[in-house]
Amino acid sequence: MNFELTREYINELQSLIDQKDEVEVYKLIKDLHPADIAEIYEELNVDEAKFIYYLLDTDLAADVLVELEDDTREKFLEALPGDIIARQYIENMDSDDAADIIQELSDEKQNEVLRYIDNKAQAGDIADLLNYDEHTAGGMMAKELVKVNENWELITATREMRKQAGELEEVYYVYVVDDNNILKGTVSLKRMLLSRPNALIKNIMEEDVISVQGEAPSEEVINLMEKYDLVALPVIDPVGRLIGRITIDDVVDVMKEEAEKDYQLISGITQDVESSDKTWVLTKARLPWLLIGLVGGILGALVIGNYETDLGLYPQMAFFVPLVAAMGGNVGVQSSAIIVQGLANNTLGLESTWSKLLKELLIALINGMILASITLLFNILVNNSMALTLTVSFALLLVIIFASMFGTFIPLILNRLKIDPALATGPFITTFNDIVGLFIYFGLGRALYGMF
Amino acid sequence: MNFELTREYINELQSLIDQKDEVEVYKLIKDLHPADIAEIYEELNVDEAKFIYYLLDTDLAADVLVELEDDTREKFLEALPGDIIARQYIENMDSDDAADIIQELSDEKQNEVLRYIDNKAQAGDIADLLNYDEHTAGGMMAKELVKVNENWELITATREMRKQAGELEEVYYVYVVDDNNILKGTVSLKRMLLSRPNALIKNIMEEDVISVQGEAPSEEVINLMEKYDLVALPVIDPVGRLIGRITIDDVVDVMKEEAEKDYQLISGITQDVESSDKTWVLTKARLPWLLIGLVGGILGALVIGNYETDLGLYPQMAFFVPLVAAMGGNVGVQSSAIIVQGLANNTLGLESTWSKLLKELLIALINGMILASITLLFNILVNNSMALTLTVSFALLLVIIFASMFGTFIPLILNRLKIDPALATGPFITTFNDIVGLFIYFGLGRALYGMF
Repeated sequence: MNFELTREYINELQSLIDQKDEVEVYKLIKDLHPADIAEIYEELNVDEAKFIYYLLDTDLAADVLVELEDDTREKFLEALPGDIIARQYIENMDSDDAADIIQELSDEKQNEVLRYIDNKAQAGDIADLLNYDEHTAGGMMAKELVKVNENWELITATREMRKQAGELEEVYYVYVVDDNNILKGTVSLKRMLLSRPNALIKNIMEEDVISVQGEAPSEEVINLMEKYDLVALPVIDPVGRLIGRITIDDVVDVMKEEAEKDYQLISGITQDVESSDKTWVLTKARLPWLLIGLVGGILGALVIGNYETDLGLYPQMAFFVPLVAAMGGNVGVQSSAIIVQGLANNTLGLESTWSKLLKELLIALINGMILASITLLFNILVNNSMALTLTVSFALLLVIIFASMFGTFIPLILNRLKIDPALATGPFITTFNDIVGLFIYFGLGRALYGMF
Repeated sequence: MNFELTREYINELQSLIDQKDEVEVYKLIKDLHPADIAEIYEELNVDEAKFIYYLLDTDLAADVLVELEDDTREKFLEALPGDIIARQYIENMDSDDAADIIQELSDEKQNEVLRYIDNKAQAGDIADLLNYDEHTAGGMMAKELVKVNENWELITATREMRKQAGELEEVYYVYVVDDNNILKGTVSLKRMLLSRPNALIKNIMEEDVISVQGEAPSEEVINLMEKYDLVALPVIDPVGRLIGRITIDDVVDVMKEEAEKDYQLISGITQDVESSDKTWVLTKARLPWLLIGLVGGILGALVIGNYETDLGLYPQMAFFVPLVAAMGGNVGVQSSAIIVQGLANNTLGLESTWSKLLKELLIALINGMILASITLLFNILVNNSMALTLTVSFALLLVIIFASMFGTFIPLILNRLKIDPALATGPFITTFNDIVGLFIYFGLGRALYGMF
């Protein structure tokens, strides 16, 4: 039952909603997956979406709420009283989804909603999760999990699991703990199917279990789950006690968000936007980097203005301004992108910063020599000014070396200062390299023109 | 048992390998996860890595082989005869990993290895998988799965599952088929735990199962699994018969690769490289885009050269060349990045191409007016040439509009031509916009200077 959203489907739905035809609207949506209903919402206005929302039973409505985009969900929750949010929606969610959604509410409304949750154990779980930063393992985990004691027999464990599993949509791993709730291992469902009922859990469990501490950053969670091909990752406290588990679907979402964020930063977009967002949202997301570019351009104009007399004497100097500027920008982005990606994926290896810079220097020298030689050849063939010919090629080489050093160094520094290194990519580096490139080019030009 | 690779660990390992101390080396690595051993390999030379490799039992060695980076693996496989590859490694792998690895071999060696596989059913499975393009669902799937007949009772199904599950590392879903192997639904392990032994599978199965056809592109697989939070996705043939299943760990790897590829394209790097790769690999990966940038810069020089007399008369025209060029580049990348990301994530929504271009035009107009006004103000304050002041601001507005239209249009066109739209990002668009921007700027300048 793969569903594909079409313009026709939306048109039909909208005309039925216009006619307030609850029966037909319900027929059209009742078999859809919550993710599909959430996708439909993005195409409707708030009133149309509300009309559908009130037709759904609370369990499905809770699932749809989880799947909605943040801004759409915000609109809904604003309009609803705290007791409805708590009793109809939050109580039907896993603790991690519930905590994520409550986190988006105002402080006042958060407390109101927590008070209205009748299941006090669930309210406590959510309150615990709200203590974690959302970019940590604790902020990603859910409290719901299936655990058994290492000293139980399989048959006891199975009976206990049946009780615990009722709350859970899917069970991927069963965690094994000791009497103090310290994580000792895991048992796979497959192993349970294949073992005898009186087997002791500690004898059939897998002891080597990869886990993560609640305070660990989300990048560590992503890297562990990706490296070890995990479907779920247990979260422990500093003592080793099992406090929650993170499932792969949540990690996939975070991974995607992180990749999108880095991609948008390198392309000069400051917020998480989509092509289908409103014009004004898209405009605002792009303007800041363009303003930086503008300031850079104006500074560039001032730099060149500084050499106005030289330029009056040798107007040909202007010909290669775009070349020098573009190369500085390109090389800087290449260098920083590799470092940013390496930091994000934890694949920088064991090389020291100095050996990285040295390698970068070597790459810049090779590429710089190749590009400078081609430019030299071009200028010897078509240009009759020796001073200009030498200026362009030599400036190009220097700019490439500077840009690659700068592009490598800045993200490493930012990372050490605990600032997102991805900020070093995109227009920031490009702009800075443009300006430095102009200084190098014109400074060198003045010196060399003086010589010839 | 979270393992962290350190320089000290590698040093110790290397000195033990130097001493050919098999016992101590084995002690140091025997409890590690295959992914950790693969990570260690990246830090060793081929001989050191081989020394370790021959200490591992074949099951673990096969797992390590799967986890290795492509180029490291290639080196190993080149040196090994076909029968060793087949009998020691391939036979210990899942069909999807086996097919991926065999795909990397030369055609001749592929056939040799396939012939040496003693388990003919496995050889057949691998040969089937080799028929699919690696960027399709068929190329991502494994043939190993657990399936039961809809007409069986749970007790029969459980017995059959025990047989089938032996081959599998983990079981996430049990697939339900009819007598013709047509996919009818799934049963969760949790549901099986909670149902009575004589329940009919067709009565406890979930009928709404999301599936994908073997020929579907990998983007569709990624989007389905992400949207519906799936851990495994069944693959069917055009008739609806179950032919394999794709697990989330493989999808996470492909997702990551796709995101990295797009990120590298936008930053002007042509191959999948990592900061820890060899200098020459990194150099080669960066040079092509720099050459395009160089050609663009030289063309730019020719464009400006065309206006040499104007420039001799009004050298101030040169001041704003970097501003105009940089803005065209920035805006073009922003526009194309949003489209490329929307195409990759399937989030472009239901808007038509025309309404996308119209929206983009509006964004460009707003941002262009803001930036042009600031520039106008700056020039009125510091500059006394009315012609230059008007030329810069007006050219900026035109360049921004052109760059945004071009940046939106090109990836959409490439996508329609079935070319990777990500190629439209990075230096290609930047370079083209630079040149067009110069034409607009100097063309406008000549006209306006004539007027004043």
